Amino acid sequence: MAAIIRRSANFSLKYSNYVRHRVVSSRSMASKVPVGFIGLGNMGNPMAKNLIKHGYPIVVADIFPESCKEVQDLGAQIMDSSADVAERVDRVITMLPSTPNVIEAYTGPNGILKKVKKGSLLIDSSTIDPLVSKEIAKEAEKTGALFMDAPVSGGVGAARAGNLTFMVGGLEGEFNAAKELLSCMGTNVVYCGEVGTGQAAKICNNMLLAISMIGTAETMNLGIRLGLDPKLLAKILNMSSGRCWSSDTYNPVPGVMDGVPSANDYQGGFTTTLMAKDLGLAQNTATNTKTPALLGTLSHQIYRMMCARGYAQKDFSAVFQFLREEENI
Amino acid sequence: MAAIIRRSANFSLKYSNYVRHRVVSSRSMASKVPVGFIGLGNMGNPMAKNLIKHGYPIVVADIFPESCKEVQDLGAQIMDSSADVAERVDRVITMLPSTPNVIEAYTGPNGILKKVKKGSLLIDSSTIDPLVSKEIAKEAEKTGALFMDAPVSGGVGAARAGNLTFMVGGLEGEFNAAKELLSCMGTNVVYCGEVGTGQAAKICNNMLLAISMIGTAETMNLGIRLGLDPKLLAKILNMSSGRCWSSDTYNPVPGVMDGVPSANDYQGGFTTTLMAKDLGLAQNTATNTKTPALLGTLSHQIYRMMCARGYAQKDFSAVFQFLREEENI
Amino acid sequence: MAAIIRRSANFSLKYSNYVRHRVVSSRSMASKVPVGFIGLGNMGNPMAKNLIKHGYPIVVADIFPESCKEVQDLGAQIMDSSADVAERVDRVITMLPSTPNVIEAYTGPNGILKKVKKGSLLIDSSTIDPLVSKEIAKEAEKTGALFMDAPVSGGVGAARAGNLTFMVGGLEGEFNAAKELLSCMGTNVVYCGEVGTGQAAKICNNMLLAISMIGTAETMNLGIRLGLDPKLLAKILNMSSGRCWSSDTYNPVPGVMDGVPSANDYQGGFTTTLMAKDLGLAQNTATNTKTPALLGTLSHQIYRMMCARGYAQKDFSAVFQFLREEENI
Amino acid sequence: MAAIIRRSANFSLKYSNYVRHRVVSSRSMASKVPVGFIGLGNMGNPMAKNLIKHGYPIVVADIFPESCKEVQDLGAQIMDSSADVAERVDRVITMLPSTPNVIEAYTGPNGILKKVKKGSLLIDSSTIDPLVSKEIAKEAEKTGALFMDAPVSGGVGAARAGNLTFMVGGLEGEFNAAKELLSCMGTNVVYCGEVGTGQAAKICNNMLLAISMIGTAETMNLGIRLGLDPKLLAKILNMSSGRCWSSDTYNPVPGVMDGVPSANDYQGGFTTTLMAKDLGLAQNTATNTKTPALLGTLSHQIYRMMCARGYAQKDFSAVFQFLREEENI
Repeated sequence: MAAIIRRSANFSLKYSNYVRHRVVSSRSMASKVPVGFIGLGNMGNPMAKNLIKHGYPIVVADIFPESCKEVQDLGAQIMDSSADVAERVDRVITMLPSTPNVIEAYTGPNGILKKVKKGSLLIDSSTIDPLVSKEIAKEAEKTGALFMDAPVSGGVGAARAGNLTFMVGGLEGEFNAAKELLSCMGTNVVYCGEVGTGQAAKICNNMLLAISMIGTAETMNLGIRLGLDPKLLAKILNMSSGRCWSSDTYNPVPGVMDGVPSANDYQGGFTTTLMAKDLGLAQNTATNTKTPALLGTLSHQIYRMMCARGYAQKDFSAVFQFLREEENI
Repeated sequence: MAAIIRRSANFSLKYSNYVRHRVVSSRSMASKVPVGFIGLGNMGNPMAKNLIKHGYPIVVADIFPESCKEVQDLGAQIMDSSADVAERVDRVITMLPSTPNVIEAYTGPNGILKKVKKGSLLIDSSTIDPLVSKEIAKEAEKTGALFMDAPVSGGVGAARAGNLTFMVGGLEGEFNAAKELLSCMGTNVVYCGEVGTGQAAKICNNMLLAISMIGTAETMNLGIRLGLDPKLLAKILNMSSGRCWSSDTYNPVPGVMDGVPSANDYQGGFTTTLMAKDLGLAQNTATNTKTPALLGTLSHQIYRMMCARGYAQKDFSAVFQFLREEENI
Repeated sequence: MAAIIRRSANFSLKYSNYVRHRVVSSRSMASKVPVGFIGLGNMGNPMAKNLIKHGYPIVVADIFPESCKEVQDLGAQIMDSSADVAERVDRVITMLPSTPNVIEAYTGPNGILKKVKKGSLLIDSSTIDPLVSKEIAKEAEKTGALFMDAPVSGGVGAARAGNLTFMVGGLEGEFNAAKELLSCMGTNVVYCGEVGTGQAAKICNNMLLAISMIGTAETMNLGIRLGLDPKLLAKILNMSSGRCWSSDTYNPVPGVMDGVPSANDYQGGFTTTLMAKDLGLAQNTATNTKTPALLGTLSHQIYRMMCARGYAQKDFSAVFQFLREEENI
Repeated sequence: MAAIIRRSANFSLKYSNYVRHRVVSSRSMASKVPVGFIGLGNMGNPMAKNLIKHGYPIVVADIFPESCKEVQDLGAQIMDSSADVAERVDRVITMLPSTPNVIEAYTGPNGILKKVKKGSLLIDSSTIDPLVSKEIAKEAEKTGALFMDAPVSGGVGAARAGNLTFMVGGLEGEFNAAKELLSCMGTNVVYCGEVGTGQAAKICNNMLLAISMIGTAETMNLGIRLGLDPKLLAKILNMSSGRCWSSDTYNPVPGVMDGVPSANDYQGGFTTTLMAKDLGLAQNTATNTKTPALLGTLSHQIYRMMCARGYAQKDFSAVFQFLREEENI
């Protein structure tokens, strides 16, 4: 108990340092202060461009330097390592594929925390295990920096259009500082609670999404076999208690809706392999918290099987196709 | 093939008889023609009363004659058997608990088909196996009567308020005749296709409902354990792709919404035992049509377990409670 | 209650008639009395031949008359219908693919019960829903015949070798009469209880078999991915509490054992489609008796999916292959 | 590639140091060399006593020092920390409840690796994530010590009787050195392969055990509801392809076997909470290796639910009871 109190006291101390630093650094300049951006992949690239559009000079790094070329042409400064980025700015955004990359980018030998400035704001938009977010936040705190998790929903299209949703976990008093930046890249920026809850919200949403998508696919398939017209069935579900986003906005059955992956041979959208990854996180957090999640874990297994059977790069709504009888056997 | 054609020819013949009969019987009278109603249980009673309110004289039967008292006081004529009801009217509605009751009421020794008049319209609003609906329709056809399945969604409250949804399967040309009666008891009367598709639509909706309800319960539980406020989590899901009727209209977590069973210790609503029954039908139809339904069958098993563990009479959203850790162990 | 007692009395009466009949018919002849055999498919053919080998003249029928040629060459008498077989013998064995075939063969317009002799013993070795076995037994009783269910375990090989296992349900006093015939075709003839329990035992065994086979496949696959040699893993499981028939006698991993389908590209053995059929029966009986069976129903769904994805005619141990990552994607 | 070769070279170097050390240390003394033992819980205590019985002086530590009293009375030397134990011996066995405890005991500030002697042999008999075993082995290698994983099967009874089974992963050349010690505590000591494969074998066995136990419980329950006598059903399964350890050695149905937990209200044996823990490990390793494990993960969820519903301290065969209908509702 005493230890916890002591630690809180320390934190308040650090926090007031932090606030002073930031106030100084952001108010004393007329033009916008540079922002660091680490991870220029399919998602990170358009996100970084939107920051540039909003007038932020950016300083970037990626383990594949060629990924930085596009933003370099737009004026971004390229660094060799995450540490070098952190040294030059007091706000850093990271957007990386998975948990080990995030651990490396923050705590690795050339990681952010090696050279981060006191009072820096570190925002991780990757989707990772919330326990890891919490661990990194603790490590960041030791250096006097503040870490927030802010995973996104919406895919590459939303990243380009700048209308992602960010789910943000971290110190409430700093939410506005994070929101200032994230609003350049997304239309919804939602405060979720302490560090890790952004990840928690993301994981929860995607678990329920997977469950209702598979449920919709099973249900539509069953209804069709029982003689129902798929468009009519979708209409009935959507005016009844079976209604869900997967049935009314992203229906997995070809021919029911236009402009969704099922209308385009399950190209585009959110890939099965990414859904399997997020469900792996959901399963890990459920295991760690000893939370029963029967449909959630079975959904994970189904997407895992689909990855093994050739669906990895198709949109996750292709589960409808996976459950259908093959024609040429 | 020839047999099928022959049979269609026979049917056309019967059908024109049927049409002539009905035209004669309904147009030749100034006041409304009596309607039969069999099955005066929790659902049947308020449905029958709504028919009376709309001016239909009704003729009723129930294997528990005491169930008929309320409608008797409102002027209903009580018969000893289903057959006797069928003898006196040319339109009969049945509302019974499960498949065997429906089989008995139609094809049993005192069943409707024993004394049904040629050209009668028989509407079954029970939720049963669609294969049985098809079989009964064939038997009815042999007597010159027309059978339609028209199961409902919405519970006792909707039955009282007269705003049930009816999903109707049967001959399209007779849909309006059915709708005339069903509209007295419900606000949505949807034509689904040939006989059995009303049941199919009902079963499909409830399977998807069960899946998304359990999914919502698992997800909310996981989120709470990960430190999210349940109201906030519901809000996030409802603006994202995890949104479903169970999350935005009937949330299973106490304290998230008012006026739903979770706000009232899971009293009222749609009982777990009824959901288990409907999922049993879904499972049977999936087995019969060799349709894979992984989440659907697992959902059935979960509701089956809940029935065995004391939740039979609670609302089906109590699955949230079932998945939570018990407190006093 | 009275009704039940009366019915028992009737039955005793019928039963003593039955016993007298049988005693007369079987003791009064020097050579063996002919036996009826209906259903000369992959299983029925070798079973019937084993009866012939043991000296029984046989009278047969099959809806595909060409199936009877082999036994005709061995002296069997061929009839046009099941009814005609029943008319000529006082013991009939049926071996048919599924529930509807059995219903037709017994209660159809040319079915056994149309011409069965009083006191006949009717043995059904098909695998069907135990509720149907009970229904047929009741119908048979009305004609003064006795029905027993006697499904087999062991496939075509065991049928040829005459070492099937029979699980027999029916009147205990008549078990020896059934055993006399069944012993010609199998080495284990087990009395299970009243009518339907033979089917129950068969269905239970196959449900547990499916569960442990899939479990073995998942486990071996996981172990291999974790760096274990499959032969060594099998050895460890088989000396530990994970041991089961699927791990020690019929291992699904190619290279672990010789002489099993996994050593021969999953050819031969017990097909996935037959396993899916038996699991459908298990699922129906579980639903009808409101018994939770989580792994049982999920196993059914897995075999259902395999059928839809090209595994229908492979041995059911091919689930190992189904769960492995595809190579050429 | 080069890095891997270099590392192997380093390792050979270290390894020859290691061998020289050990040869010197164990051959130069007449009486037995002391052995370290960390973790004197329910399992560790009887295991340590068996080492003492075999003449090994032991040096022990536990975070609850009172756990060491019993072995202290038998002559064990008690240390304050794992580091202090490692400093005094050249062979250490650890037996701890879960992954974080093992990480702490090896790599924590007072952990073994802080003071371990070059050439020491470190054997971890805890059941943990095999990835963690591999990580610790790498860390140990850096200090010149050799780490092996050697989880056990068999519970407290087997620990007392000295007939545990050890599944050992690590350098094959050192297996005999480990076996010398482990044979004092168990009758089977099985070499599984490189570091981590001992854990892999343990986890695989327990996953298959859980699946077949739940499968047996579901099957026995279904059979009983279908009218089969449980003893007879067990007998039939055990002579058929449904046979497994859970059906023939540890049957979960009260009255079928003597001397098993189901005969004693599910007291004793292997608790549900421990099974849930091992299944959590199985689930994590399956997720990490992207291996589909549908029944394995569902089994995990079922044991997770049982823990939440009052079964945590009952034997894991109580899943039979969990699936049965409650009587007093």
